[in-house]
Amino acid sequence: MQNLKMGMIGGGEGAFIGEVHRLAARIAGNVDLVAGALSSTPEKSIRSGHALGLERVYPDYQTMLESEARLPDDERIDIVSIVTPNFLHQPQASMALANGFNVICDKPLTANLEQAIQLGKEAQDTNLKFAVTYTYTGYPLVHEAREMIQSGELGTPRKVIVEYLQGWLSEPIEQEGQKQAAWRSDPTKSGIGGALGDIGVHAANLVETMLGQHITSVSAHLNRVVPHRQLDDDGQVMLEMESGIRGHMNFSQIAVGEENDLNIRIYGDKASIEWHQMNPNTLTIKRQGKPVETRTTGFSATSPSATAMTRTPGGHPEGYLEAFANIYKNFADDIIATRSGNSGSFTYPRLDEGIRGMKFMQAAFDSDKNSQAWTKIE
Amino acid sequence: MQNLKMGMIGGGEGAFIGEVHRLAARIAGNVDLVAGALSSTPEKSIRSGHALGLERVYPDYQTMLESEARLPDDERIDIVSIVTPNFLHQPQASMALANGFNVICDKPLTANLEQAIQLGKEAQDTNLKFAVTYTYTGYPLVHEAREMIQSGELGTPRKVIVEYLQGWLSEPIEQEGQKQAAWRSDPTKSGIGGALGDIGVHAANLVETMLGQHITSVSAHLNRVVPHRQLDDDGQVMLEMESGIRGHMNFSQIAVGEENDLNIRIYGDKASIEWHQMNPNTLTIKRQGKPVETRTTGFSATSPSATAMTRTPGGHPEGYLEAFANIYKNFADDIIATRSGNSGSFTYPRLDEGIRGMKFMQAAFDSDKNSQAWTKIE
Amino acid sequence: MQNLKMGMIGGGEGAFIGEVHRLAARIAGNVDLVAGALSSTPEKSIRSGHALGLERVYPDYQTMLESEARLPDDERIDIVSIVTPNFLHQPQASMALANGFNVICDKPLTANLEQAIQLGKEAQDTNLKFAVTYTYTGYPLVHEAREMIQSGELGTPRKVIVEYLQGWLSEPIEQEGQKQAAWRSDPTKSGIGGALGDIGVHAANLVETMLGQHITSVSAHLNRVVPHRQLDDDGQVMLEMESGIRGHMNFSQIAVGEENDLNIRIYGDKASIEWHQMNPNTLTIKRQGKPVETRTTGFSATSPSATAMTRTPGGHPEGYLEAFANIYKNFADDIIATRSGNSGSFTYPRLDEGIRGMKFMQAAFDSDKNSQAWTKIE
Amino acid sequence: MQNLKMGMIGGGEGAFIGEVHRLAARIAGNVDLVAGALSSTPEKSIRSGHALGLERVYPDYQTMLESEARLPDDERIDIVSIVTPNFLHQPQASMALANGFNVICDKPLTANLEQAIQLGKEAQDTNLKFAVTYTYTGYPLVHEAREMIQSGELGTPRKVIVEYLQGWLSEPIEQEGQKQAAWRSDPTKSGIGGALGDIGVHAANLVETMLGQHITSVSAHLNRVVPHRQLDDDGQVMLEMESGIRGHMNFSQIAVGEENDLNIRIYGDKASIEWHQMNPNTLTIKRQGKPVETRTTGFSATSPSATAMTRTPGGHPEGYLEAFANIYKNFADDIIATRSGNSGSFTYPRLDEGIRGMKFMQAAFDSDKNSQAWTKIE
Repeated sequence: MQNLKMGMIGGGEGAFIGEVHRLAARIAGNVDLVAGALSSTPEKSIRSGHALGLERVYPDYQTMLESEARLPDDERIDIVSIVTPNFLHQPQASMALANGFNVICDKPLTANLEQAIQLGKEAQDTNLKFAVTYTYTGYPLVHEAREMIQSGELGTPRKVIVEYLQGWLSEPIEQEGQKQAAWRSDPTKSGIGGALGDIGVHAANLVETMLGQHITSVSAHLNRVVPHRQLDDDGQVMLEMESGIRGHMNFSQIAVGEENDLNIRIYGDKASIEWHQMNPNTLTIKRQGKPVETRTTGFSATSPSATAMTRTPGGHPEGYLEAFANIYKNFADDIIATRSGNSGSFTYPRLDEGIRGMKFMQAAFDSDKNSQAWTKIE
Repeated sequence: MQNLKMGMIGGGEGAFIGEVHRLAARIAGNVDLVAGALSSTPEKSIRSGHALGLERVYPDYQTMLESEARLPDDERIDIVSIVTPNFLHQPQASMALANGFNVICDKPLTANLEQAIQLGKEAQDTNLKFAVTYTYTGYPLVHEAREMIQSGELGTPRKVIVEYLQGWLSEPIEQEGQKQAAWRSDPTKSGIGGALGDIGVHAANLVETMLGQHITSVSAHLNRVVPHRQLDDDGQVMLEMESGIRGHMNFSQIAVGEENDLNIRIYGDKASIEWHQMNPNTLTIKRQGKPVETRTTGFSATSPSATAMTRTPGGHPEGYLEAFANIYKNFADDIIATRSGNSGSFTYPRLDEGIRGMKFMQAAFDSDKNSQAWTKIE
Repeated sequence: MQNLKMGMIGGGEGAFIGEVHRLAARIAGNVDLVAGALSSTPEKSIRSGHALGLERVYPDYQTMLESEARLPDDERIDIVSIVTPNFLHQPQASMALANGFNVICDKPLTANLEQAIQLGKEAQDTNLKFAVTYTYTGYPLVHEAREMIQSGELGTPRKVIVEYLQGWLSEPIEQEGQKQAAWRSDPTKSGIGGALGDIGVHAANLVETMLGQHITSVSAHLNRVVPHRQLDDDGQVMLEMESGIRGHMNFSQIAVGEENDLNIRIYGDKASIEWHQMNPNTLTIKRQGKPVETRTTGFSATSPSATAMTRTPGGHPEGYLEAFANIYKNFADDIIATRSGNSGSFTYPRLDEGIRGMKFMQAAFDSDKNSQAWTKIE
Repeated sequence: MQNLKMGMIGGGEGAFIGEVHRLAARIAGNVDLVAGALSSTPEKSIRSGHALGLERVYPDYQTMLESEARLPDDERIDIVSIVTPNFLHQPQASMALANGFNVICDKPLTANLEQAIQLGKEAQDTNLKFAVTYTYTGYPLVHEAREMIQSGELGTPRKVIVEYLQGWLSEPIEQEGQKQAAWRSDPTKSGIGGALGDIGVHAANLVETMLGQHITSVSAHLNRVVPHRQLDDDGQVMLEMESGIRGHMNFSQIAVGEENDLNIRIYGDKASIEWHQMNPNTLTIKRQGKPVETRTTGFSATSPSATAMTRTPGGHPEGYLEAFANIYKNFADDIIATRSGNSGSFTYPRLDEGIRGMKFMQAAFDSDKNSQAWTKIE
């Protein structure tokens, strides 16, 4: 079985998430990074590509996409990985699709909802695959929980609480040259959401993935806590889900001392579950008047999808990079299977989920502007 | 130093919280239960009193209050403890005050705001002491946290999250004869709030006590999740605090598998704290990019008020009953000190906090009725 | 039902454990402290007794025991509580028994094994009850675990690990006037064991109680880590149990930063359990390849003896004082039942367990002197 | 910078640790697996190599080593990775060294001490690098702790406790065809140690690495708990360290329900530390009467060596595979640096540590045979 070939846009010198994508792809093991246009500055793009030892290094993404498209089938890249700031996702993904490449794109999908809908249309008529790296749904126990809920182990879900708390933007570091902070808090690069787009969409995707229901309405309060910040850095959202139940989302990037605390609790009428990203290999199940049950990755978590996403036996902790790798692996396996005429179920976040993330953001944004009025999604 | 004498209203056979009050008073050690009207049924009241070996047993609270009032100063009770369902608090407390007794009353203060305001007026012209048993602010580390915030260790507070989650009402047990559930879900006995009054007011008091700020406005969503339930059994409230910062409260009695999970996190611009009632002897302090700090009762928690509320050295866990006892002890010490002409600072929740709890409930109730509109308190 | 009457020896001004015993007795609720000889200094004894408001205050324990013995049955004390340094336990308990009093005595039972055996003989011919306050076996979940093991839920036990780690003697505070440290590290007052007698016997009692087997042989290494200390302040012991399985005990009072970390793990061939005194309301059960199960006091711990030792519902944490109170309560209930001609099962550590603690200490002491040679107990 | 080339011996179809090594190498990113003799069965070796898409596939390791040795410098492999059962390590490593290859070998180094000493001699006269994959010292926080101890933050170390508990051999699965269990419990393949060699040497290496002292003497008790098992599956060891302090090691593979619980506590006279492999990103520091301090990977752990071993920011958990990758990366970087004439400090376990592991095993083995007599190492 031959590995797929991948080209990367963005992720050159000084970038953070590009290296994470590359590590993820290496762990995945079914995709090789062979080409890149790693920076918007041509010299930097080329220098970065050489530093990584890529086979084919391009000055800009347009050149890469056009050049690769002209290569023979067995040489050209199969996948374009987009790891640039939000405002570039749509033009880059759009051109990648137009040139016949499968796309794996960082989140949020785009800078605004219009771009997302546009991308959705462009993808519709192709038979290309499109993944969005909502990393956290790449953890095995998210799918263990999802399968438990689908099978009815929790009974009817009644309440959901999701939190995503970080502290890294508690000071105005974007005004002090921190590169990651700078573009994320600049509406021309980040789009309509600050923390909402950076972490809120992860939380929304986690709720929908685990619960197997869409968020249908929100009442959102967005904060800009740090003075002079242009985009939200904190917020809370009341949620209404498809089945009518209520939920709550709390997110913040000014929660001093919190590292990357994404966590979720779902309460059913028979049982409840709790999962924390920072302790990703334990899933807690509670029942009224009964012992708490803790399932662990590779040991007592036994759902097929969790098992398929696990590399090591229990007690050998897997983490963030392995979750990220699961998205890469399943995405690439899907492409490979389709080419072989095989079908199968491949678990990874797709374009639809990217678009839904943007709808969630837009609704939250509108609700906040409108005194937290309940605002429908769609 | 002589112990104070106490008479109890309610808490007879089959009651839960009455025995907790009695245990708390015994641990406190400065108050003796000598009299009681322990049930609304005279025979049961008398039988229960004899079973406890009380010196003076009364058929009903009116008889107790009138009879005790006629006893000589060194024989009559000093304190009336009210442990009845909510709708009885106001008439009983009112009559106790009128007969010159200090009052310690369970929460919520009354069945509705009007009764609370009425009580406030009646107490105003007396020099009697009035405690409300918001038990959870009787824990030492709540005051450790309060002192840290007051001293500026957290910097300017920016965000607060409080949760109070239980699962014991996840089934309609009030329809199956469970006595505690029955009156709590009956508006004629419980008042305007279900879970809101049973646990929401605890959460509100915890926020205000720890943060040292009042809640000034709420946007509340109240749920009645279990069919045919007349009062809320679940809800969430966006909070605005005096200083303008936002907070969130989540409370539920249908959160299957949760025992008594009251917890709070307060984020400042320098540091943040986290405390969980079910693990009451640890207080976590987080700072950006710094090690997490955990203070423990009797070991590294060293604020004067925490120390004063601690009976055993670190690692010898104290719990709920000791927290409850701290309220009794400080309340009784306050009465003793005032009689001796001494002043001093005695930490316990007072009538004002009881009234504020009712204002919070009323505002949440109104907000929910009004599509979660932001509703001012006061 | 009338409360029993109790007289206390020791526990006056400046003492620690005496106040803990008094709190425990108050929580127990079936015993009243009415008399005391609280200090070896007569004036201090009397001053301490008056400060506590005791009915009958004595200058010394001999006077108390003789005077009380002459009182009518319905006035005299039923129980003598001994809370003095170890070397006084035997003479005081001996005289209490001789005068017809039931005894509850702090641990270790005596200063050396001879004294313990002597006490055992003296008690044999009476029908008096004798409790030893191995506090930690007063926790409900210790008995939940014991019942699980007895019922075979763990299968055949194979391995046990018990630890008791403290740090409070990590500096030579006995040389700086710390009263608790001073007598504990003085062989003329503490007896043959330092940490071994102060905490090692607790660990040994916990193993035997939970496992339902005696320790039959030890290979012990005792340390005196802090310079110039006369008694052990640290040690480790390999254990052999009745059934032939091996265990390990680690104890220390120089483990800097440890508060009072007594914990135990027992591994069976079907399941294993883990319990930590500092988190006393959770009991963890592990099975191979299965979810971890956590039982909690008052919620999912449902064995009869655990339930009988629990005062509050799940999530309302009970702690050290309540565990201590369980020993007082069950001991007093046993006396009351016997007087009423009722029999019953009352769970508390008895004289035999006190004697066995001394045998454990002696064997460990001998093994250490003999290059850690395996040394039989008995 | 060119990646090094690697050939692997062992790790074909059905093997476990081989795939872990391959994942680790991919994450490391500075070494490429290009050749392999993956099985002792030639056809299986070739089939496995093709399945992995290796460039050069060999029927057996002898052929690989000889063939590769004949290739030009820029084509031949730089590193041989040995992932076979213990008894094969020495002949394979020996031949690899003889043919001029750097070696990275799984642990324990060999099947017995003689083989280890032999290997040590053979390596001495080469300038080849030799790594032993004591994986757990590849975690960043192990080195954070090591640097804290070296810098004196703990003061003088006084006591160490290390545990390594697993339950996977609690049943005689080696008699039921479980391949991993079968060779590990067969003395002809595993060597002198069962659990001792499989996990005990990890624990010994962790103690020595973190503490920066050698174990100098042991008193060991080895168990064979499961009937008919030929090698130890459980044991405990009293340790004496270079500085004279005592320690304890407990290890087991019959601890039902334990996954892979390697943990260590080191107590100094100023501070103490605690680390658990299953929660590898937190390091706890305790001080007497002070708040507990928790450092986390990528956030508050800031020692140079910890930082160098960390790939993602705090709260993005790294785990076992990343720890494994750190050993590969640092080993390969060391080779690269040496070739470039650069020196530097590269943190990974070397041949010496492999030999010391065998000395520890032999001493424990001898002590157990000799009634747990204290037995010197060296």
